[in-house]
Amino acid sequence: MADDLSFSNRDAQKLSPYLPPISTPDTVGSSDKSPTAPRPFVTLTFATSLDSSLALAPGTRTRLSGPESKAMTHYLRSKHDAICIGVGTAVADDPALNCRLLSGPQPRPIVIDPQARWNLEGQSKVLQVAREGKGKGPIILTGVTTPPSSYSKSIEQVGGKFITIKLNENGRFEWLDILSTLYEEGIRSIMIEGGASVINSLLESVNHSLVDSVIVTIAPTWLGQGGVVVSPRRVIDGGVTIPAARLVDVSWNPLGEDVVLCGRLR
Amino acid sequence: MADDLSFSNRDAQKLSPYLPPISTPDTVGSSDKSPTAPRPFVTLTFATSLDSSLALAPGTRTRLSGPESKAMTHYLRSKHDAICIGVGTAVADDPALNCRLLSGPQPRPIVIDPQARWNLEGQSKVLQVAREGKGKGPIILTGVTTPPSSYSKSIEQVGGKFITIKLNENGRFEWLDILSTLYEEGIRSIMIEGGASVINSLLESVNHSLVDSVIVTIAPTWLGQGGVVVSPRRVIDGGVTIPAARLVDVSWNPLGEDVVLCGRLR
Repeated sequence: MADDLSFSNRDAQKLSPYLPPISTPDTVGSSDKSPTAPRPFVTLTFATSLDSSLALAPGTRTRLSGPESKAMTHYLRSKHDAICIGVGTAVADDPALNCRLLSGPQPRPIVIDPQARWNLEGQSKVLQVAREGKGKGPIILTGVTTPPSSYSKSIEQVGGKFITIKLNENGRFEWLDILSTLYEEGIRSIMIEGGASVINSLLESVNHSLVDSVIVTIAPTWLGQGGVVVSPRRVIDGGVTIPAARLVDVSWNPLGEDVVLCGRLR
Repeated sequence: MADDLSFSNRDAQKLSPYLPPISTPDTVGSSDKSPTAPRPFVTLTFATSLDSSLALAPGTRTRLSGPESKAMTHYLRSKHDAICIGVGTAVADDPALNCRLLSGPQPRPIVIDPQARWNLEGQSKVLQVAREGKGKGPIILTGVTTPPSSYSKSIEQVGGKFITIKLNENGRFEWLDILSTLYEEGIRSIMIEGGASVINSLLESVNHSLVDSVIVTIAPTWLGQGGVVVSPRRVIDGGVTIPAARLVDVSWNPLGEDVVLCGRLR
């Protein structure tokens, strides 16, 4: 709470074209792009260095962006029903996954944990803030049919739960399964924050139609080789390598020392 | 020449704090930062994707940035005595290395070619434009004592030449040797444009004091894994990995679909 999380109206206005529409359960989320199943509005957001790293090394947390960008993250969280990370980030960061703006509804934390490897403990921040009423209990999406009993009770006590989703042949989830499951849980908008494997999979062309907005903060630093890099799998079309993804409807907004890039995947 | 190379005064003004001072040979170039030998003002400039790639694959050229950024490149060239690339870029791109703005002085092309492997031919663009009076003859910096006779004549015919510089134990040049050699040739400002190995070596901390300005254009695209990446060697300090480089005095300026980042290496 010592953090300065003030985010100016002027900065907020620049984000508004990229935010979810105001929720009205029957109309929002059933995107034209996904005729097979209704899904929430999806915002993909993360912060990188100039060399596209999220962190200096796997399993570590690197403070990249300035205080203004942190305030923006919490503003964005306040505009979504849920925030979502992969299990690698949950293990590495022990994040609170709440919104630390003084007012506003709390988003639901979602953790993608196919093998149920997150060793959630009573002291985990996400449970702490939920017990204190400063955040919602997490939903953990897993591929195992019997979630670990050791901590499923502590999750249920704060209003969270495990949901089992089927795994594909690679031991992963399909994004459409994740999103339609969350839609059934009443989630109409979701902010997906990382880590690298989650981001890189959404930046693959097969998943572009599932992403409504992309908001990337870039800090003016190079972390150097060996970092945790955002870069989707290369795309080869007719024997020729082509760019993997491109944003359209682009807006660049300086914020402190950083820049915030907003756009949509073509 | 069908290219639209107009660059607005408004955009130019944003660059001016990062450009070389107006040349007066006795005072400029002898930077406070390099007491050992006077050197030119150095601007490091390049364009990358969001995943910090210069090109989709080694030896290929990828059009990354928009027409406005191209106009900016030629504006920047007009503000420097010389433009410099590594031999890899010279081989891959066959660049003209001239300034295609309608008026203004031409910069001197400099190619860093330690092993004299650039197989320059009469049809090479840099020679063509020099013969047509639309560019200066190139200076090729090499470590071999006897440059290939096959094409040294064609270079001399357009006012260019080979200069031999001593190689270090890794078969490379030291940047201070390159820059002080060029200073002796009367060059007071140089724009270093690439490719990846040239850029990455200047982004290493040992060379930060030799760079006066950095101007990076970023296009809103991810090229995907396997590209030619700008990312300096990782830096480990007391057993801990730390960011390799950071810009200060930062300015972010949207230009078309791209953003132009200007700054100085701390």
